Amino acid sequence: MTLETAILSLDNPAFSAYVLAASIMLLKLLLQPWMTVYRMMKVRAGFRSPEDAKKSPINPNPEPGQLEPNEYVERSRRMNLNDLESIPAFLVAGLLFVLMDPPLVLAQLLIWLYVIARAAHFIAYATGQLHDIRATLWSVSSVSVLVMVVYTLVRVLIG
Amino acid sequence: MTLETAILSLDNPAFSAYVLAASIMLLKLLLQPWMTVYRMMKVRAGFRSPEDAKKSPINPNPEPGQLEPNEYVERSRRMNLNDLESIPAFLVAGLLFVLMDPPLVLAQLLIWLYVIARAAHFIAYATGQLHDIRATLWSVSSVSVLVMVVYTLVRVLIG
Amino acid sequence: MTLETAILSLDNPAFSAYVLAASIMLLKLLLQPWMTVYRMMKVRAGFRSPEDAKKSPINPNPEPGQLEPNEYVERSRRMNLNDLESIPAFLVAGLLFVLMDPPLVLAQLLIWLYVIARAAHFIAYATGQLHDIRATLWSVSSVSVLVMVVYTLVRVLIG
Repeated sequence: MTLETAILSLDNPAFSAYVLAASIMLLKLLLQPWMTVYRMMKVRAGFRSPEDAKKSPINPNPEPGQLEPNEYVERSRRMNLNDLESIPAFLVAGLLFVLMDPPLVLAQLLIWLYVIARAAHFIAYATGQLHDIRATLWSVSSVSVLVMVVYTLVRVLIG
Repeated sequence: MTLETAILSLDNPAFSAYVLAASIMLLKLLLQPWMTVYRMMKVRAGFRSPEDAKKSPINPNPEPGQLEPNEYVERSRRMNLNDLESIPAFLVAGLLFVLMDPPLVLAQLLIWLYVIARAAHFIAYATGQLHDIRATLWSVSSVSVLVMVVYTLVRVLIG
Repeated sequence: MTLETAILSLDNPAFSAYVLAASIMLLKLLLQPWMTVYRMMKVRAGFRSPEDAKKSPINPNPEPGQLEPNEYVERSRRMNLNDLESIPAFLVAGLLFVLMDPPLVLAQLLIWLYVIARAAHFIAYATGQLHDIRATLWSVSSVSVLVMVVYTLVRVLIG
């Protein structure tokens, strides 16, 4: 069995943890826009494209103001943008980090710290908790990915 | 030949389909900002940074209002943001899905369903079709990636 | 040693260059939001969520207008959005490109051209240089990734 066979196989517990965490975070990334859709449909507002205010099966009774920003909808869009700033970076950084064959306990710690911090950040953001709480959780998630990247950088520089 | 050699080789038809589809979607992701640039240059408006309204070779005759949002330009920016919400997720989800060695016909179905739905979504968005049409095509693309992720999640959990 | 062992190993100079460049670009992607945070804290403005204007340890003296867009903060947000349009595409395109086992000199040229162009783009954007300078640097970075994608596309189509 070659090194890479071991690394990119579910028999490798670090890769397995990464694939599990990556799948959960991909679900989060993919489902957030559905939350925006749900909110737009619920309040029949917060649309963005002019054609979305036209009469159609999903907008049977157009009203003025449907294209205005709506905080209930905008919150979900900001959460989506926050995901875009964080999750793709984690997905790639995590894969490269695992390819560096890090100590298993470090890999599991950083990967699950990220997932837990992002889950808590989601709850804090959705329920409008104080900036301090959201910022702290966001910082934990950011630092956990930064450590993965620095580990990878050191490995490729020092060998 | 090891497992990984087979999986990450163009001799593996699932990986080959993924690389072809990923390259097409990367082109889409990379070319959408060029459409925004084209539209900004055509209408000489829709700029975002204060310095973009200064006199320069690409803006020889500055006019007031060049920093105001311009729907023709904003449409391309919304299309770009929609790409950012979808394509990076597909790129990573597709790679992890192919690494799980799924049935070839399922892999090809999900991968091409995604590409076709996104191509149709692009046309619907660019031409301002009804929200219902755009939303349906977006949903198909989202669900096809969600199925890849759920398949990966089940594989890593059940083995 | 199998093909993939060679390709996804730091012993492969093309993969090694990719991992080094990817790590640098991941740092850029992850640190840009920290620049936004720094700027928000410095001017105590440019917040986006209603709850961010509440009294709290990081906002001890709330003032009206803290939720209004603030150009100093918005510039960092636009730089972040620009990163989101470019860096994830580079990270995936670069990995697939390296998996195609390209000529080493071509790989190194395109990878470092991208990193240098993005570094210069960052400086031009942060210091508000003329649109022409920023646009030129952005174009160089975009074209270098496009070449990687076209190379990958040709390899998968022609074999």
